[in-house]
Amino acid sequence: MIQKALAIDIGGTKIYYTIIDENGKICAEIEKHSTPKSIAEFEKLLKNIFSKHENEVDVIAIATAGAVNNENTKVISSTANLVEGYNAIDFQSFTKKKVFIENDANAAAWAEHVLGASKNCPYSIMLTLGTGVGGGIILNNKLYKGKSGGAGEMHFKMYPDKRRKCTCGAWDCFEAYASGGGLKITAEEMLNDKNVTTYDVINGVKNGDPRMKQAFDRWQNDILAGLVGLANLFDPDCFVFSGSMAEFIDTEFLENGVNAEIVTAPVKVYKATAGNYAGMIGASLLALNN
Amino acid sequence: MIQKALAIDIGGTKIYYTIIDENGKICAEIEKHSTPKSIAEFEKLLKNIFSKHENEVDVIAIATAGAVNNENTKVISSTANLVEGYNAIDFQSFTKKKVFIENDANAAAWAEHVLGASKNCPYSIMLTLGTGVGGGIILNNKLYKGKSGGAGEMHFKMYPDKRRKCTCGAWDCFEAYASGGGLKITAEEMLNDKNVTTYDVINGVKNGDPRMKQAFDRWQNDILAGLVGLANLFDPDCFVFSGSMAEFIDTEFLENGVNAEIVTAPVKVYKATAGNYAGMIGASLLALNN
Repeated sequence: MIQKALAIDIGGTKIYYTIIDENGKICAEIEKHSTPKSIAEFEKLLKNIFSKHENEVDVIAIATAGAVNNENTKVISSTANLVEGYNAIDFQSFTKKKVFIENDANAAAWAEHVLGASKNCPYSIMLTLGTGVGGGIILNNKLYKGKSGGAGEMHFKMYPDKRRKCTCGAWDCFEAYASGGGLKITAEEMLNDKNVTTYDVINGVKNGDPRMKQAFDRWQNDILAGLVGLANLFDPDCFVFSGSMAEFIDTEFLENGVNAEIVTAPVKVYKATAGNYAGMIGASLLALNN
Repeated sequence: MIQKALAIDIGGTKIYYTIIDENGKICAEIEKHSTPKSIAEFEKLLKNIFSKHENEVDVIAIATAGAVNNENTKVISSTANLVEGYNAIDFQSFTKKKVFIENDANAAAWAEHVLGASKNCPYSIMLTLGTGVGGGIILNNKLYKGKSGGAGEMHFKMYPDKRRKCTCGAWDCFEAYASGGGLKITAEEMLNDKNVTTYDVINGVKNGDPRMKQAFDRWQNDILAGLVGLANLFDPDCFVFSGSMAEFIDTEFLENGVNAEIVTAPVKVYKATAGNYAGMIGASLLALNN
């Protein structure tokens, strides 16, 4: 009998849910809600989703923004994109089915590991390039979470001397340079134009605008600089890029660049292949095989 | 019956050896040789040491400069401080006793984990600050080596834009700033004086020289910047500092500084306590309990 999970992806703007089986197959339509702006609405929505589907499944698997503890029961960090108090919601209290929670980037990295781009790699690091940068680290075929569950935060410094504030409150994190938002700021600084957007840069590169190309190249070089450090620290088999900005990166450039600089063994650089619902798939696979 | 190892520490200038038991206790005098400058001399010395002591021990445990494979049988990188061809020496061919090899920084990190500063920490990162910077990473009570054995290299970038060449051939690695050699270069740059030494800086700080204090503070801030990234990536319980420069760092400053910036759970910062022979002790503990 194939086991199934009610899979839910809780993001800053949208909540998705569906049914996913132990092989990672999506078995129902993907349903979608706006992310509630109050705790009361949040709890009501979750209760509704749970009660509608819990009888069809063996487990409830949640991929969420924010760090999740090592027991996969609790969001342990506050998440800037979600309503205050979100991390105090006791998901398990809404259902008798087992609820399994994992950070969305970790869950997506696990989906890539099981059935995506890093399938045959015991050691992989996934980087989700979007508004921010998410990270998911697989070491020796296991999701790496650290002592408290919060490992894999791509907040390592690109400069030691306070140039660009990061959304985390610290200065000059990789996220502040390698994200879509980071590309915008890099372009702003280089073009001396506050109004330039990430889209302008991407579009400019397509149209052969040399200034936009320079900004894009600096962004990609900053990503490369980060990969060199990650490769020397973790000695992974590969990096996997996902997220809305991943389509623009040049994996061959990055792979050659990293391998030219590292002291550890060569790495591969891939784009993610597990699709947009990798977070739900990975959370389901983790929940069903836990 | 307590098991024993013939422990050998192979460094760029000296080779030490002694007998160490399964509890990490040093059971004989520490003997010392200059590191040979030719492969022939190297092999001769090792054969002599092995044949003199192999009958007293259960295993031969070698802590060496250079990365070591995951099977602990072979040095896999070339090591700038040792004679060319060193990594091709087949240690096992010189004896019938089992030979176990580990990188010296990894071995020392393991000694700290078993009986030193990070004793009760499942997740720890050791940084050896000397001429260079060595790294040893313990995750979930196991030495972390990565896919090939070379993980834990403290060669992540402090700047993305090529300022200071590192001994590894790449630019702007943490090692090039956080090492004793890095402190010298930082002081050279700040004082515009090619002849200033690491000793001048340390001595100047002691004597209240404000320019030396500034150079020292920048060095320590660079170390802090590195720790922030390592803490966000690995979410460790603690950092442990060893090596000749460790005595000068301010662990309270670093601990407070890191914890003020990270998004993961708080970390501790300690100085190593397993002593000068931690490499031999750690290699012996690993070899005897493997």
